Amino acid sequence: MKREIINKLKSIVGKDQLTTAPEELLCYSYDGTGREYQPEAVVFPVNTCEITAIMQLANATPFPVVPRGAGSGMTGGALPVAGGVVIALSRFNRILEIDEANQVAVVEPGVITGDFRKTLEKRGLYYPPDPASLKFCTMGGNVAECAGGPSAVKYGVTRDYVLGLEVVLPDGRVIQTGVRTAKGVVGYDLTRLFIGSEGTLGIITKITVRLIPHPSAKKTFLILCNSIKQATSLVAEILTRHRPCTLEYMDRTAIQIVREKLPFTLAENTQALLLLEVDGDAPSVAIQVDALQEFLTAKRDLLSVMQAEKADEIDALWAARRAVSPAAFNLKPHKISEDVVVPRSRIPELVFFVENLATKNALTIFTFGHAGDGNIHVNIMLDKNEPQEVNRAAIATKALFEQVIKLGGTLSGEHGIGITKAAYLPLELDAASLEVMRGIKKFFDPNNILNPGKIFPAERHAKKTIDKITDGRL
Amino acid sequence: MKREIINKLKSIVGKDQLTTAPEELLCYSYDGTGREYQPEAVVFPVNTCEITAIMQLANATPFPVVPRGAGSGMTGGALPVAGGVVIALSRFNRILEIDEANQVAVVEPGVITGDFRKTLEKRGLYYPPDPASLKFCTMGGNVAECAGGPSAVKYGVTRDYVLGLEVVLPDGRVIQTGVRTAKGVVGYDLTRLFIGSEGTLGIITKITVRLIPHPSAKKTFLILCNSIKQATSLVAEILTRHRPCTLEYMDRTAIQIVREKLPFTLAENTQALLLLEVDGDAPSVAIQVDALQEFLTAKRDLLSVMQAEKADEIDALWAARRAVSPAAFNLKPHKISEDVVVPRSRIPELVFFVENLATKNALTIFTFGHAGDGNIHVNIMLDKNEPQEVNRAAIATKALFEQVIKLGGTLSGEHGIGITKAAYLPLELDAASLEVMRGIKKFFDPNNILNPGKIFPAERHAKKTIDKITDGRL
Repeated sequence: MKREIINKLKSIVGKDQLTTAPEELLCYSYDGTGREYQPEAVVFPVNTCEITAIMQLANATPFPVVPRGAGSGMTGGALPVAGGVVIALSRFNRILEIDEANQVAVVEPGVITGDFRKTLEKRGLYYPPDPASLKFCTMGGNVAECAGGPSAVKYGVTRDYVLGLEVVLPDGRVIQTGVRTAKGVVGYDLTRLFIGSEGTLGIITKITVRLIPHPSAKKTFLILCNSIKQATSLVAEILTRHRPCTLEYMDRTAIQIVREKLPFTLAENTQALLLLEVDGDAPSVAIQVDALQEFLTAKRDLLSVMQAEKADEIDALWAARRAVSPAAFNLKPHKISEDVVVPRSRIPELVFFVENLATKNALTIFTFGHAGDGNIHVNIMLDKNEPQEVNRAAIATKALFEQVIKLGGTLSGEHGIGITKAAYLPLELDAASLEVMRGIKKFFDPNNILNPGKIFPAERHAKKTIDKITDGRL
Repeated sequence: MKREIINKLKSIVGKDQLTTAPEELLCYSYDGTGREYQPEAVVFPVNTCEITAIMQLANATPFPVVPRGAGSGMTGGALPVAGGVVIALSRFNRILEIDEANQVAVVEPGVITGDFRKTLEKRGLYYPPDPASLKFCTMGGNVAECAGGPSAVKYGVTRDYVLGLEVVLPDGRVIQTGVRTAKGVVGYDLTRLFIGSEGTLGIITKITVRLIPHPSAKKTFLILCNSIKQATSLVAEILTRHRPCTLEYMDRTAIQIVREKLPFTLAENTQALLLLEVDGDAPSVAIQVDALQEFLTAKRDLLSVMQAEKADEIDALWAARRAVSPAAFNLKPHKISEDVVVPRSRIPELVFFVENLATKNALTIFTFGHAGDGNIHVNIMLDKNEPQEVNRAAIATKALFEQVIKLGGTLSGEHGIGITKAAYLPLELDAASLEVMRGIKKFFDPNNILNPGKIFPAERHAKKTIDKITDGRL
């Protein structure tokens, strides 16, 4: 990137709000995938006008621009794969408004989701989406990827709470989408077109969300099962009768990984566990707990049903659940982590398929995640220094995706496509849908300036890439 | 339309599935707006391939195509304003699948919403959206307009239940959007781009919706208030503490219109009433009822709080509520009915403004509707044979919309824009948003074949039209 461009960028954001220092660029070159792509510069704009000016310059030059929240994404959404400039949105970090009477809030994209939730709790309000990374991920990233979390089984995902957005378009124009009311059907639904578009259609600079009253009570159950089949079948059964706010699942490998962190001693033959929570006001939680106890007691073949009573027990359970993903690296140095979704009645088939896949390909694969909404995190462990293992993992990944589609499922429940799943997109989307999506991208961003290389498979090579994977040559 | 084209259409759908008979065309020339535009032909395709062939022919010729459900829309979405062919979707009327285990259903667009809800109820399942027209409106129309209804205050609108669609694009290509799982973030959210697009981007031929368990119990309250302010303030207060599944409101004129249909005798000084319902399973409804009773009893200045206990009382209440709109024609032969939305804390201001507007312009205006989500139906009564009254009504409508935007609201909560509100769109949307929406339309439908003349203000005349309204000359 020419010095002249860097100087122009400096004149937009101020010279202290741009860096090209290698050690700083490094901090903006990675995300949750573990892959690394170095940007040529990172800028820290503080308002919409600066972003507009950057986008105008980027189109005129041209150079790629990649918006970035906390870099906690799991599919590469924030990676500058084509170089260019990263726009760090860390200075867009204000909660602009909490309107208690109307249960609406307006935030900037750099606000950390967990901080926002804590601020709301003090006022008796609740913003349900709770991705595992909530302590550091940002609202902007959550909107760009349509983040979910354990609470989605009862409360839905980010999409279900965003009412409106302010967006800087790839050409620098600023638009306001949506409403700040409970309803609104004026013109096309641009709000939801931007949600989940992974930073490829615009840069989100303001987010209006609806809130709900904070549930005042919660109860946590831990259910131990003697087989995966028992656990996964129970999930479908529970959901036709009850309305838990969490219904998480771990297989025996996941349990093994975090066994020491759990606040309970598990029976030796525990093959799977369910973490189940109900929430609401105290009387309604009491009713739910009674109904669940009755239902679970009648299931005589369960190994154990425990209620976590104390706050520290509950915290320890959640700490263990959230530790599954990072602690998995004790097994192998690398992990391919997929967040596939199937209709929940098909979970047993999926998990059975994954177990066979592991055996057949001599891989360690474990599953855990949001069983309540059929969103199973499938984790393939590998050592990238072992080419044979890498190939086997690639074959297993493709087989997994094909099976998921066969089961009526989808490639991603909450992580998005980014770069890691782009090659597989044609497995799920028909050719015409893909063409339409490409056309929308081209309409918004004719110069392909904004977050290039994401979502879509490389046009000419898509089929070849997939064939290569089939042959285990990737 | 040339005989040659008619013959080609006949060869696509079969000669008995097309009509040009004037008396039949008449049946497809109106909708809920009371306006009339005659199509040149109506076709009754039975499958997606036929629709594809029609769209290909329409582009090649060219002629306009307008998809039509039950014609119950309130803003002209189904009116063939530019002539051409109406595609009646009445033969796409099958419930294709009800998957109880996964709480998902797949329906064709011609399925009547009320019938679908009844079929589900027998299986213990619930599809919440309940537009007032549910006995005759169709699922396709509901998706195209993003229909709501009284239950939206608790359960949300059509958008919140649609998981995926099959759509014939304006050029005839068929795409599958979305998922049939609880979650999904693969590619751009085309599903929600089509929802509420008022039949301008594609013809919906299949709809996948998520379902929830049917609430087994419900209680209905009727709350009489001595002032509109009391009623509208109560709405905001109720919603910070309780979670009703209905919170409808009527002002004194609306009450007057249906007073004789109500199953209760109202106090003479009743100035407004609230119809409130809570639902769930029996124990949770009991808890909600206790909490509401306690809350409402403490409000000593309410005129009366009644519980409708018997099924026939509840039915009569709902019959009265649904009769407000049709029975209003006893006041005047014509009605301008707007479904504006404001943040619910601003409802008192809006209703006060409307009362003044009526006085100032010597008009009868009454309000009722979904107060729980701030979606107030404002009804301006007039006689279109009185040019002065027509002008005053036009001035009042524009003033209403301007005030709604000032209050942080939106022009439409559930009826859409269609032709009746198109001229006002620039009041709410910024110029860049409008340009983006027009660009999306052009990308999907470059020949402007599909439902032309809807949503967007006539490009050159938009400002003029608005100016005209200001001068009371429309």
